[in-house]
Amino acid sequence: MSSSFHQKSLDLLSEQFGSKGIHIDSLLSKIAAFQIAVPSWALGAGGTRFGRFSIGGEPRNLEEKLEDIGLLAKLTKRTDAVSLHIPWDIPQDVQAIKQKATSLGIGFDAMNSNTFQDYGQRHSYKMGSLSNANATIRKQAIEHNLQVIEIGKSLGSKGLTVWLADGSNFPGQAHFRKALQGTTESLQEIYAGMPADWKLLLEYKPYEPNFYHTVIPDWGTSALLCRQLGDRAKVLVDLGHHLPNTNIEQIVATLMHQNMLAGFHFNDSKYGDDDLSTGSIKPYQLFLIFCELIGGAEEKAQAWESISWMIDASHNTKDPLEDLIQALEAISQAYAKAVLVDREKLTQCQNEGDVVGAQEVLQEAFLTDVRALVREARIQSGGEADPLAYYRSEKIREKLITKRGKNAQASGL
Amino acid sequence: MSSSFHQKSLDLLSEQFGSKGIHIDSLLSKIAAFQIAVPSWALGAGGTRFGRFSIGGEPRNLEEKLEDIGLLAKLTKRTDAVSLHIPWDIPQDVQAIKQKATSLGIGFDAMNSNTFQDYGQRHSYKMGSLSNANATIRKQAIEHNLQVIEIGKSLGSKGLTVWLADGSNFPGQAHFRKALQGTTESLQEIYAGMPADWKLLLEYKPYEPNFYHTVIPDWGTSALLCRQLGDRAKVLVDLGHHLPNTNIEQIVATLMHQNMLAGFHFNDSKYGDDDLSTGSIKPYQLFLIFCELIGGAEEKAQAWESISWMIDASHNTKDPLEDLIQALEAISQAYAKAVLVDREKLTQCQNEGDVVGAQEVLQEAFLTDVRALVREARIQSGGEADPLAYYRSEKIREKLITKRGKNAQASGL
Amino acid sequence: MSSSFHQKSLDLLSEQFGSKGIHIDSLLSKIAAFQIAVPSWALGAGGTRFGRFSIGGEPRNLEEKLEDIGLLAKLTKRTDAVSLHIPWDIPQDVQAIKQKATSLGIGFDAMNSNTFQDYGQRHSYKMGSLSNANATIRKQAIEHNLQVIEIGKSLGSKGLTVWLADGSNFPGQAHFRKALQGTTESLQEIYAGMPADWKLLLEYKPYEPNFYHTVIPDWGTSALLCRQLGDRAKVLVDLGHHLPNTNIEQIVATLMHQNMLAGFHFNDSKYGDDDLSTGSIKPYQLFLIFCELIGGAEEKAQAWESISWMIDASHNTKDPLEDLIQALEAISQAYAKAVLVDREKLTQCQNEGDVVGAQEVLQEAFLTDVRALVREARIQSGGEADPLAYYRSEKIREKLITKRGKNAQASGL
Amino acid sequence: MSSSFHQKSLDLLSEQFGSKGIHIDSLLSKIAAFQIAVPSWALGAGGTRFGRFSIGGEPRNLEEKLEDIGLLAKLTKRTDAVSLHIPWDIPQDVQAIKQKATSLGIGFDAMNSNTFQDYGQRHSYKMGSLSNANATIRKQAIEHNLQVIEIGKSLGSKGLTVWLADGSNFPGQAHFRKALQGTTESLQEIYAGMPADWKLLLEYKPYEPNFYHTVIPDWGTSALLCRQLGDRAKVLVDLGHHLPNTNIEQIVATLMHQNMLAGFHFNDSKYGDDDLSTGSIKPYQLFLIFCELIGGAEEKAQAWESISWMIDASHNTKDPLEDLIQALEAISQAYAKAVLVDREKLTQCQNEGDVVGAQEVLQEAFLTDVRALVREARIQSGGEADPLAYYRSEKIREKLITKRGKNAQASGL
Repeated sequence: MSSSFHQKSLDLLSEQFGSKGIHIDSLLSKIAAFQIAVPSWALGAGGTRFGRFSIGGEPRNLEEKLEDIGLLAKLTKRTDAVSLHIPWDIPQDVQAIKQKATSLGIGFDAMNSNTFQDYGQRHSYKMGSLSNANATIRKQAIEHNLQVIEIGKSLGSKGLTVWLADGSNFPGQAHFRKALQGTTESLQEIYAGMPADWKLLLEYKPYEPNFYHTVIPDWGTSALLCRQLGDRAKVLVDLGHHLPNTNIEQIVATLMHQNMLAGFHFNDSKYGDDDLSTGSIKPYQLFLIFCELIGGAEEKAQAWESISWMIDASHNTKDPLEDLIQALEAISQAYAKAVLVDREKLTQCQNEGDVVGAQEVLQEAFLTDVRALVREARIQSGGEADPLAYYRSEKIREKLITKRGKNAQASGL
Repeated sequence: MSSSFHQKSLDLLSEQFGSKGIHIDSLLSKIAAFQIAVPSWALGAGGTRFGRFSIGGEPRNLEEKLEDIGLLAKLTKRTDAVSLHIPWDIPQDVQAIKQKATSLGIGFDAMNSNTFQDYGQRHSYKMGSLSNANATIRKQAIEHNLQVIEIGKSLGSKGLTVWLADGSNFPGQAHFRKALQGTTESLQEIYAGMPADWKLLLEYKPYEPNFYHTVIPDWGTSALLCRQLGDRAKVLVDLGHHLPNTNIEQIVATLMHQNMLAGFHFNDSKYGDDDLSTGSIKPYQLFLIFCELIGGAEEKAQAWESISWMIDASHNTKDPLEDLIQALEAISQAYAKAVLVDREKLTQCQNEGDVVGAQEVLQEAFLTDVRALVREARIQSGGEADPLAYYRSEKIREKLITKRGKNAQASGL
Repeated sequence: MSSSFHQKSLDLLSEQFGSKGIHIDSLLSKIAAFQIAVPSWALGAGGTRFGRFSIGGEPRNLEEKLEDIGLLAKLTKRTDAVSLHIPWDIPQDVQAIKQKATSLGIGFDAMNSNTFQDYGQRHSYKMGSLSNANATIRKQAIEHNLQVIEIGKSLGSKGLTVWLADGSNFPGQAHFRKALQGTTESLQEIYAGMPADWKLLLEYKPYEPNFYHTVIPDWGTSALLCRQLGDRAKVLVDLGHHLPNTNIEQIVATLMHQNMLAGFHFNDSKYGDDDLSTGSIKPYQLFLIFCELIGGAEEKAQAWESISWMIDASHNTKDPLEDLIQALEAISQAYAKAVLVDREKLTQCQNEGDVVGAQEVLQEAFLTDVRALVREARIQSGGEADPLAYYRSEKIREKLITKRGKNAQASGL
Repeated sequence: MSSSFHQKSLDLLSEQFGSKGIHIDSLLSKIAAFQIAVPSWALGAGGTRFGRFSIGGEPRNLEEKLEDIGLLAKLTKRTDAVSLHIPWDIPQDVQAIKQKATSLGIGFDAMNSNTFQDYGQRHSYKMGSLSNANATIRKQAIEHNLQVIEIGKSLGSKGLTVWLADGSNFPGQAHFRKALQGTTESLQEIYAGMPADWKLLLEYKPYEPNFYHTVIPDWGTSALLCRQLGDRAKVLVDLGHHLPNTNIEQIVATLMHQNMLAGFHFNDSKYGDDDLSTGSIKPYQLFLIFCELIGGAEEKAQAWESISWMIDASHNTKDPLEDLIQALEAISQAYAKAVLVDREKLTQCQNEGDVVGAQEVLQEAFLTDVRALVREARIQSGGEADPLAYYRSEKIREKLITKRGKNAQASGL
């Protein structure tokens, strides 16, 4: 990509949108302002139940995870926060970690608790945690979440993300209503333990790791629970957490209509919770989701600032840092295209029943090649013109392997 | 099926459950009491967009539809009500219809409105009805529903079922949040027009006849709307209205947990809204649903009496009356098996994390052959021992064809 | 779209690809050469089992259908053939029809038979046609297909498309193996009746209009049948005829690997056989399919010329002609992008296990805005720069309504 | 379950089927003769990518695995073979293992190779094995399979099961046709290395552990490969390896129609490859599958003896031995019910288009409570009347934990 070609592309886009009254500078500053958090567990290789293939040079501790995210921030200028997971990321020296993060330009996004695994805690979560039939185990799971809040407070985080894997594998195993009621009461205790300026982000997922029933399987159940908690409890949408053929963009709209969208876990999928790189399978769906987000914010259904953004993918066969660079780029492109939608014309088509025209309006934006815009925004922010090329030409993975070792393995799944 | 074999089967079941303290007479009276409504449109052949194959002898008017349901009632003793559809079933002489129904032992279940077709009304529903971007069309659709309520009042019905097919076929066509808001306001006007002793049964369906977005796609959206209407608005579950792999029994439990289950449209499906005979594809799922229903009622989550029961199938290749006989039998069996579940033992397994034991408890009931129970309940109520055999040996379809003609076609789809 | 902006866009693309050794003229001629047939039934409004909404001005006979396709050809320069359906399109005067078609620049693509409906034939297809348990009915269905071949021969068609809707709605209804064997033998008789320069295009579809089992549900069954017929029997892929989450591009590759791809029915879908406008839901999937097609042809797996291309959509809420204009554009774009893929670089990435790089290569092509290319190819061929804008500004639908009437209804579904 | 109740149940079944000319002794001997192999990896706790919960007392080596299967054989009399997995089950002393197995009444079913994990072999399978773009890695994977054959020969096995997990996670990563061609050639080398009395059982699976494309995703691809190998290569059906809503019983029939069904991996699933206990989710589907198997064998499509039977489930929350007892019982019940189907009457209904009657025939068999039959067959073979009750009352798991330890972990996933 020569810089002259970049400039010509930019000029053409500038002409195209300028003629519609959209100033390119305003586009560039919107794109530049949109930042997506990266989870600490996304920096190592992922895996499946059938095994895991090493990447090499994975971060061995929290400091190194921060360094990786700092690198992503420096190259892409699209991320400025990390989302930590407890117990995988318990900081030994809180002040040192905070300083390190600050020096890298990284803040602390929502904290993640873990009550889906056994990692040495007293009682097993095999039969559930916040929904467990046994009050003692529910209590343990509540206390774990309260501890996560404490750690988050010390770091400056402002949110708690709860992914509740609880459920059952066979009919009869769980009592659906009791499990739901138990979860409600457990979450109420956790919510009560949150500082007044925190929010609770509640995920839903139809299946896996449980294969018959999951306590919070859909947005409706998550919203039901949030309503019983309070205004600062909202529904988190993970793109891979839906049954086949779900219209996710409609769920986004419905949640914003209720001012109940907590935020996103970005990834992509073809079959289930595949955790593939965002934008690699269904880029048009990603664009349509951003159309709803921007529309919902512009029309005051829910404030843009109230929504959290995070990537959550599993890098089974890609270098995690390269994958994250691709994902940040795909998200930025989808966002930029959605900004370009001529919403006035779209409204007119909708009011007139002009179905063909409405499709044209959306595709006019989607088909536009916005790469020069995203690139320019990145350059203006001080990032690399082509982060992936830079990463490769600088042999960053090789250097990480040299430094951290071939068999370094990040904590996580 | 000889009567001696029937008696031996019954005696064996009596011994089996008597030893567990379950009296067979109480089982029989429960089975006998469980009645399911039949919709007026289920008495003719159904069809697909690719065509329709005639059955012959279909009811040509409302009187003949009542006669068909009267026959079903007489043979099976499992149905005592019809669910009418407007405009297909507008009664010309209300008093005559009421008398005819009473003489057949048939009451009037929930009324069904139709804003998904054009049948001569002033404005087309092509771009939606209760959610239409055009207020005039919304108004027309509201008034249609109010008219349906009036007809229902005159007949003694106590409910209005709303299936809103509104949605869109392409991204951009509809404004999700405005469509939802318009629907809310439309339904509020309809709800306000309902008598105080009526309930509104609100359906959901993910797709068809719209193939990109449906305004009320899932139970969560239906419940959201009902909450904005009032206590007498509840969510109707049609078994075929779910995305692939949905855990429907959990939805039933979740709705009962909120006292928000309006009732059922029974059918079965393998792919989508296939409208196959209830129990013909997934009989174990049907049993599990009844387990939730009985559990939810026994544990006072929601009163059994507050729930409506209706069949809603499409008879593309079967004689509709034979299909309904099969469906009523399958529903009775699933109900009877669910009654037999040893709930005390199940609770114990759930509390102890005995997954294997819980499965055994459910399967102990499901694997029991309850046909003799269902048959005995029917005989004691004055029905036929074997309704299907009776229907065939009496050549009822042939008689209907003789009387009504080979090409008689019932109103409906 | 000003012509100066068009030229600048074209120049930029020319520069971009010229630097990679791709001449824009070769691109333009490839795009111009790619022609897609239109089926005669796509010119009227479609519908669902719940009803149909009129469009107005639909073609009332075969001549008018040809006129509509002639218009599409003139505007878009992307279609040059019609695919007829018997009995909907039986020509009364073969010579007159041929002359009309020739004068419009329209040829006759594959013929379509219909054994899924009853339209007055002696025996009903309710229980199946080519697979019917009754030999007399199979015979009737075979003869219908032979008659379709005769009509096709008289018009100059070179292919017969068989969509066999046969199947069953309930377990037990059909004998799977006998139905398959009956179908094999029926198709063998049909194949034997085809001229030596014809091909048989055999569709598959998992469900609808039958909802338990379909005799030819997947590509494997279709290929199995074709192998028993002969080299000129191949598998037709309709994009909507797959179970949820199917990797269709892989099926295309697998069929080409066997030299068994007959061709395509283009449309798009979110849930099932939704028959939405091609490219309106999953444009990236369409692009990936074209990547396989071009790769398979370049690498000599199967000759490009041996593949047939046809649109098959249902226009429930759009003007059919506008929908077809959008579909032809979307197909051309997907094709053009697939041509732009740097296949040499892709091969290198595949050989090196560079997953990230391979994704970059595909997205480099997909993200390119090729609209100027497609437009230029159309202009150079004598078509309209913007066919949709032309259609609207010329008020063509209004004129058709004036000429043909508000309630004119095309034969079809 | 009292023995007098058992006898009365048996007598009633005897009367019921005797009146139809079916002798109960012939039923009992069929049920007794049907044996299902157990895989060595099913004796430990399974897990998901999110973690694994220990069971305790798992077999620590091959000898102990054989002991567990020996126990299952003794209790249930429904299994007489183990299916080994290499490298998890490489025998150190072949003769000792053979003697141990013989003494337990256990034979060696098909061997399983593993080219989906890295377990210390020279080249990683991260980018595939038999389909790898790199010939050296393909060679390594071929040699692994040849080694598995050698081990199997030494033990007396007669088959090799190949589950090829190869595929890709992202568009572009793999070259579909080359991967298929490479797999063909690799399998040809393996097939050539098989003794003349062995068969190759080739699995298919649509996704997981790869989430974009799998080289052998469906039965069609597996059959295509088998045809290129030879008569002794056949298609293995794992019940969980299908896209949503697949009609598996039809696939079974289609494979038998071609004499290409290798055998089964029994399990059950609601969402994907959930590996739940057979019969726990969709018992009617399991029955329908057995209807096809018995019909296909009786009608000489494919010989019953040529089909292999194996359980393949993952016991995430159940005691594996209890789960296997439940699965063996469920399979026996489904088989027994399918044997009871009145096939003559079914054929008559199919020929007459009596859809209702055909459904009645199947349900007559399915609704019959065959537990007394299965139990009696087990008792007559010397097994336990109630294996699960015996297992619990004898505190077998507790004894295994005492002997093998709380943290014993079987090799496997």
